[in-house]
Amino acid sequence: MADALKVGIAGLGTVGASLVRIIQTRANELATTCGRAIEITAVTARDRSRDRGIDISGIAWFDTPEKMANEADIDVFVELIGGASGAAADSVKAALTRGLHVVTANKALLAASGVELAKIAEEKSVLLNFEAAVAGGIPVIKALRESLTGNTVSRVYGIMNGTCNYILTRMEKEGLSFADCLKEAQRLGYAEADPAFDIEGNDTAHKLAILTTLAFGTQIAADEIYLEGISNISIEDIHAAADLGYRIKLLGVAQLTDSGIEQRVHPTMVPHDSVIAQVDGVTNAVAIESDILGELLMVGPGAGGNATASAVLGDIADIAKSSPGAQRVPVLGTPAASLAPYKRARMQSHEGGYFIRLTVADRTGVFASIAARMAENGISLESIMQRSKPDAATDTPKTIILVTHATTEHSVRKAVDAIKAESYLVGEPQVIRIERPKAF
Amino acid sequence: MADALKVGIAGLGTVGASLVRIIQTRANELATTCGRAIEITAVTARDRSRDRGIDISGIAWFDTPEKMANEADIDVFVELIGGASGAAADSVKAALTRGLHVVTANKALLAASGVELAKIAEEKSVLLNFEAAVAGGIPVIKALRESLTGNTVSRVYGIMNGTCNYILTRMEKEGLSFADCLKEAQRLGYAEADPAFDIEGNDTAHKLAILTTLAFGTQIAADEIYLEGISNISIEDIHAAADLGYRIKLLGVAQLTDSGIEQRVHPTMVPHDSVIAQVDGVTNAVAIESDILGELLMVGPGAGGNATASAVLGDIADIAKSSPGAQRVPVLGTPAASLAPYKRARMQSHEGGYFIRLTVADRTGVFASIAARMAENGISLESIMQRSKPDAATDTPKTIILVTHATTEHSVRKAVDAIKAESYLVGEPQVIRIERPKAF
Repeated sequence: MADALKVGIAGLGTVGASLVRIIQTRANELATTCGRAIEITAVTARDRSRDRGIDISGIAWFDTPEKMANEADIDVFVELIGGASGAAADSVKAALTRGLHVVTANKALLAASGVELAKIAEEKSVLLNFEAAVAGGIPVIKALRESLTGNTVSRVYGIMNGTCNYILTRMEKEGLSFADCLKEAQRLGYAEADPAFDIEGNDTAHKLAILTTLAFGTQIAADEIYLEGISNISIEDIHAAADLGYRIKLLGVAQLTDSGIEQRVHPTMVPHDSVIAQVDGVTNAVAIESDILGELLMVGPGAGGNATASAVLGDIADIAKSSPGAQRVPVLGTPAASLAPYKRARMQSHEGGYFIRLTVADRTGVFASIAARMAENGISLESIMQRSKPDAATDTPKTIILVTHATTEHSVRKAVDAIKAESYLVGEPQVIRIERPKAF
Repeated sequence: MADALKVGIAGLGTVGASLVRIIQTRANELATTCGRAIEITAVTARDRSRDRGIDISGIAWFDTPEKMANEADIDVFVELIGGASGAAADSVKAALTRGLHVVTANKALLAASGVELAKIAEEKSVLLNFEAAVAGGIPVIKALRESLTGNTVSRVYGIMNGTCNYILTRMEKEGLSFADCLKEAQRLGYAEADPAFDIEGNDTAHKLAILTTLAFGTQIAADEIYLEGISNISIEDIHAAADLGYRIKLLGVAQLTDSGIEQRVHPTMVPHDSVIAQVDGVTNAVAIESDILGELLMVGPGAGGNATASAVLGDIADIAKSSPGAQRVPVLGTPAASLAPYKRARMQSHEGGYFIRLTVADRTGVFASIAARMAENGISLESIMQRSKPDAATDTPKTIILVTHATTEHSVRKAVDAIKAESYLVGEPQVIRIERPKAF
């Protein structure tokens, strides 16, 4: 049997502690499967003495990740610290520069510096694996980087934030408000005390930026993502969506268009009978549409110490199983030096169906005016729904819901602006984009 | 750049021709991604002169697969002939013995001789890849063999036959009979002229046997699978399932139990709101439940020339990207020499819920008798439904549907046998097992 693979783990939070436990308790199985032992020979974390329920007594301790990256007797540097800069970035860079393989779960780091790090890894002929960085336990990086070799991807999209999906699911199933569901998610530990990063879509955007590069072979462009969170979604939207045969999900979508690549994160209506519409709660899902394979959808846990540790362990095992010497798995699917520039498609030119909810004064001619604004902008309508409570007074504002056939963002915004200029509108119009899976 | 990877393709049917076309038209992209060119240097098929819409003029032609395996100047032998024995088996064995990597889409061959072939591959330190053999374009082999390293799998199950899923979907959506849907599937090319291999579950069984070995590290045991096809499913069952909140799918299920491993292929009721229940038509889906990662579900095309060629190409690319020399990816997840014996769990001890449909004479005391037979066998009931047409004459047979709580196959068979011994039963009872996804 070959020499043991020596692993150093930086960061002993939930994922790190879980990883240590698994590698220690399954040492025999791992050695059999990988053809060599996997041995943790170094660790580093903020607090040496904290009780994590794991035994690190026989493992070399380092006071800083940088020191471990530079000095430890290891083959693989596992980064579980987090953050786009600071210790995580410095230590990963140092490890790669030293010629160590790196495994990381750090989406922020990759979204910010993925290309730079991939270049170093490829120069040094080492692997930089990051399955856990996107959609936790779902092997979407492997699918894009390996299984789909030779395919031209046309669209990749998914539910990549468990907090948002949990909230949207609870709103629909229990009829609760966004605020109530957020509070519940916080109580259950599914949402942070400061939930903005999740509910405004930034977390999804980081993951999407990485998938975009893997799918389309372009530079990472995490700052060029159209972003809209879910805090604006009301129970009324969810009910109207259900009546029309849709469910609302926060999707990250990257799509190849004639004018460039769209990257967008926003609440999305998906057909109720599509497979992804059934993905509830904190579960994640990623779909990939490509020209040879067709459509592939993967559903699984997007977070959690064990699921993330499993993905990290899979990455370590891939290194253990690979032969030493020249590695030819390009870190980002395409060799870093061959990545094309990212060409952003303008959001205005996005094509698709739209759900538009308007609250209007109950006045003669309103419906005709709305229909005229749509027609003027070349928008044809799939369905129109007017809602009012049967016992409401005649001067109560009414809700009008429109679902458009495929049109452009530009047309919809122009039409909505024209409607906003009319005097009958009460409150802000709600606009939700519709996304249709190609095959299922 | 490293030397080109030289590939020989045996079999130029739909998949083979598609593969040749893709490798030829995407040569540049493949070379960039893999760090070396992929070049087809040898082909063999039954008929040299047939027009396949591809250019094989510059490629060495061999009259037999065996000759190509033994003599061609290739690094990888791609077997797309099919069949558990004969040319496919002989040529794959010859190629491995010669020290060539092998890629195959041949489930029958692997189900019959997978362990023997894996042993040769491992002795020769070459790769034997077979992603296309199970569920076509869905990368389930990679997930089990690589991503889930270190996990203990408890259950793997899936919709792995497009013909059956197409027929069941059409029956439900159109209210047509099994026979009519089968005819339609044959007309559309989704079913063979002799459909027995698909509809009786044998095709699913081959795939399941391979997944079982990857999931549980045991010897392949394709002959020890409990088998029940879908020809017995009536539109009445499908309607009753819908009323009770279920859909009927032909599942292959491998499950770890206290008394061994269950391998079974049979019509199965899955909860309507589970994700897998939404997988319609010829689409396939495979779910894996494991202790660290949790549940993973993959949905995609299970067949078709392009989807299968894509999976084969992914396997070839993995070889192109890997370093030459010692390979440590065990062919079947566990090194062939370390596979445990397969211990079959008795079907009688299977535990789960059951749907039982009985047609009975409309006689006083029938209901009480059925309830008594269930109770005597310790079976508790989740729901009971009696159906009769409102205008039916009083002596028309009635349909009684029972859904049990978790019980054993043994108890259900005993209860049903006891009911069959009574004089009120009209026709054969229908029994369908219920399967519940763990997480979604």
